[in-house]
Amino acid sequence: MATPSPGYSMILRVQAPAGLTVTSELAVAAATAGAAVTALDIVESHAEHVVVDVSCNVSDASHRDEVRDALEAIEGVQVRKISDRTFLIHLGGKIEVTPRVSLRNRDDLSRAYTPGVARVCTAIAENPADARRLTIKRNTVAVVTDGTAVLGLGDIGPAAALPVMEGKAALFKAFGDVDAWPVCLDTKDTDEIVRIVKAMAPVYGGVNLEDIAAPRCFEIEARLREELDIPVFHDDQHGTAIVALAALYNALKVVDKRIEDIRIVVSGVGAAGHAIIQLLTANGAGDIVACSRNGAIHRGENYRDQHRQWIAQHTNEQGFSGSLKEAMVGADVFIGVSAPNLLDEADIAAMNDRAVVFAMANPDPEVDPGAAAEHAEVVATGRSDFPNQINNVLAFPGLFRGLLDAGATDITTEMLVAAARAIAGCVGDDELNASYIVPSVFDPAVAPAVAASVRASAEAVGAVAEPVAEAAHA
Amino acid sequence: MATPSPGYSMILRVQAPAGLTVTSELAVAAATAGAAVTALDIVESHAEHVVVDVSCNVSDASHRDEVRDALEAIEGVQVRKISDRTFLIHLGGKIEVTPRVSLRNRDDLSRAYTPGVARVCTAIAENPADARRLTIKRNTVAVVTDGTAVLGLGDIGPAAALPVMEGKAALFKAFGDVDAWPVCLDTKDTDEIVRIVKAMAPVYGGVNLEDIAAPRCFEIEARLREELDIPVFHDDQHGTAIVALAALYNALKVVDKRIEDIRIVVSGVGAAGHAIIQLLTANGAGDIVACSRNGAIHRGENYRDQHRQWIAQHTNEQGFSGSLKEAMVGADVFIGVSAPNLLDEADIAAMNDRAVVFAMANPDPEVDPGAAAEHAEVVATGRSDFPNQINNVLAFPGLFRGLLDAGATDITTEMLVAAARAIAGCVGDDELNASYIVPSVFDPAVAPAVAASVRASAEAVGAVAEPVAEAAHA
Repeated sequence: MATPSPGYSMILRVQAPAGLTVTSELAVAAATAGAAVTALDIVESHAEHVVVDVSCNVSDASHRDEVRDALEAIEGVQVRKISDRTFLIHLGGKIEVTPRVSLRNRDDLSRAYTPGVARVCTAIAENPADARRLTIKRNTVAVVTDGTAVLGLGDIGPAAALPVMEGKAALFKAFGDVDAWPVCLDTKDTDEIVRIVKAMAPVYGGVNLEDIAAPRCFEIEARLREELDIPVFHDDQHGTAIVALAALYNALKVVDKRIEDIRIVVSGVGAAGHAIIQLLTANGAGDIVACSRNGAIHRGENYRDQHRQWIAQHTNEQGFSGSLKEAMVGADVFIGVSAPNLLDEADIAAMNDRAVVFAMANPDPEVDPGAAAEHAEVVATGRSDFPNQINNVLAFPGLFRGLLDAGATDITTEMLVAAARAIAGCVGDDELNASYIVPSVFDPAVAPAVAASVRASAEAVGAVAEPVAEAAHA
Repeated sequence: MATPSPGYSMILRVQAPAGLTVTSELAVAAATAGAAVTALDIVESHAEHVVVDVSCNVSDASHRDEVRDALEAIEGVQVRKISDRTFLIHLGGKIEVTPRVSLRNRDDLSRAYTPGVARVCTAIAENPADARRLTIKRNTVAVVTDGTAVLGLGDIGPAAALPVMEGKAALFKAFGDVDAWPVCLDTKDTDEIVRIVKAMAPVYGGVNLEDIAAPRCFEIEARLREELDIPVFHDDQHGTAIVALAALYNALKVVDKRIEDIRIVVSGVGAAGHAIIQLLTANGAGDIVACSRNGAIHRGENYRDQHRQWIAQHTNEQGFSGSLKEAMVGADVFIGVSAPNLLDEADIAAMNDRAVVFAMANPDPEVDPGAAAEHAEVVATGRSDFPNQINNVLAFPGLFRGLLDAGATDITTEMLVAAARAIAGCVGDDELNASYIVPSVFDPAVAPAVAASVRASAEAVGAVAEPVAEAAHA
């Protein structure tokens, strides 16, 4: 049975006969049925009966029903209602738009709205660069999706994708003080998505593409980067690549190997895999073998897909052409962004000594992390219930904070590398070990470190908007 | 000279010789130069000199310079810096995006983001109506512009329009608890604007079109209303019409006339004029003469513009074909949404007894309101420095509050009328007089009254989304 998860936490409102032992009987029954009980609150107490809220985590819908049945199996107990806490916190949405200015009297209104606002509009019309100073553009990012590759759920459409984009926006603010807004587009047409994002760009200082299916995501990102003067970032590609690279820096310290000397097997050549390979290559990784469902990508084959063609030309100098399992033999590092359970314990055992395994397929990794840890020295996954979670939240809030602070007009590979180095640097030498190669997502030092590093990188390469002339008006 | 305005309020940081009378000398000098001094703050005090912040309102940039010169004319006084408070409050923009959920620990993250959010996405994919319950769609409105008719500034483009849209969003929240987001589009193509708004609609429960030039605004509104299942509202048309109608209800009470019996002259047949005429017609106004720059619109002429054609067919049954000034003779009501200074005192004197004049051209009305008041019994303008300000802020926050509360799918004329009646009803019979025909924009009773009235109207005509099934999950 799957582990009870706080993502599936319930409140069961239970009526039970009054008595000294009622709460403990309920707790025992729920726990025996496999629930993780987090709270028992008596909401009503009468002479004959009590009403108790049993808060607990379960693993799925059928488990929830089992827990309910277990409670009702107690003499006189009745479950009145089951509330799902995940749905409760989603009611009405997870973000709101709030004024940063006072609007309590006529003077406020005269400055923030008419007639005063007209002078601010005129200033921007005369000097467009002022928009980065006098409007939300300075701090605002569009989170753009077409809803075609949402989490592991696939093409569920723009409306169903909205809860993820809202969550992303909430994380942007909580972790990076970035104002992010969901743009869920009801179209899958590449040209139209590009046109729309270009048309709405005046409001934004950056674009975060999210959960757009490959290969469309590549073209959309490339064209927007070319045509817009604000940074465009596809988180599923580069966010994952940044955090994977950060984890790799620290993992290689743990196993005492250098990136130039090792052989890396990458499983998965979609959006994330392609970006990881690009970033590894830019970091001097010499020997990379990338595998798709059909085995290793190599120069001996012609790929119609230009991204696979690029991978073939930039990896696998030896021309290895076998399967993923064959590629694993003697490898130093495995990086998986592909599918569940492609490898077993024997495949990890066949790797080089002091092996590193990043099995990031979600929710089920490429190899059981417990089994992998029997043979590899460092194991990381995308999950929060194992050590070393490779989580994009470590990257995107600080990255965009730095881009906005710099007034960046573009994102370069140097900036991605700068972000990765900053994340890796948040794990101190005294903290670093095989179970702690990436900082906690709640480490408040991460986003500022990433922001400072990215900002410095942007300013160093000069990819920033013209500096705003010093305050003619203010 | 124009009146000093809080929209042009300055802080002059002044260095002056220390002394007992220094602040009063500064105040007198600024006031003598025509500034409205609002505060004097000593920010530094030394043996030989003091530094004083002189806060004051001026009328324009040259007036600001005159005030500066007047201060510097005092022996030993030097103006170090002038800060413009309107620009200061605009720094970094006027709205922000804030989380409504806690994100402090792993359990929070598991519910608001992965893995818990996946269940919410799936619920919406299976039952699209749930988006109105489980996402920001329930409370969120897009404020859409192409920047072509911004305030009185004309076609200043989408970036320069952003401060107005931000201000509007701030007002939506402050007055109606509606989350509104600026959508400033870098295109003037009607088809493209329609396509973009349709594509981004999944996030929104309503669309407020703003500052889009006529006649494009008519087609955009009509097509979006036809093709979207959320209400679409062009504030420059219908917002103005609602508040004008509300003011007219109360003005007619003051002068004791009935809308069926009077002759109304409307000056201006653009976006606002057209909407006002539609709403007057729906309210039983029998005799309306609409005037453009070329005089009265009448059935004897053929208009290529379909909106003028509609006006010709629905007004001016007598077939009057003279000029605006000629139309004014004997009229009971004048409603101007056109251009400054088209009429003089004699034109108002030529109106019927107990005349009503709404001169709403901004910032300079069709007729001087002081001169108009010599002859008309009730005078209203769009300005805040005269009695009876016809201000859209009275309408749009409550209107959308009501539409969102109802889950409205469309806006009907009945709902516009319901909003106007609610606004008029906020002026009690004991308060009503010729100088108080509309409530204050800061009257907290207005938005809730409008919302309740609009919601009831939407539910009565059945223009609401299918009711969401009672909380299967929550």
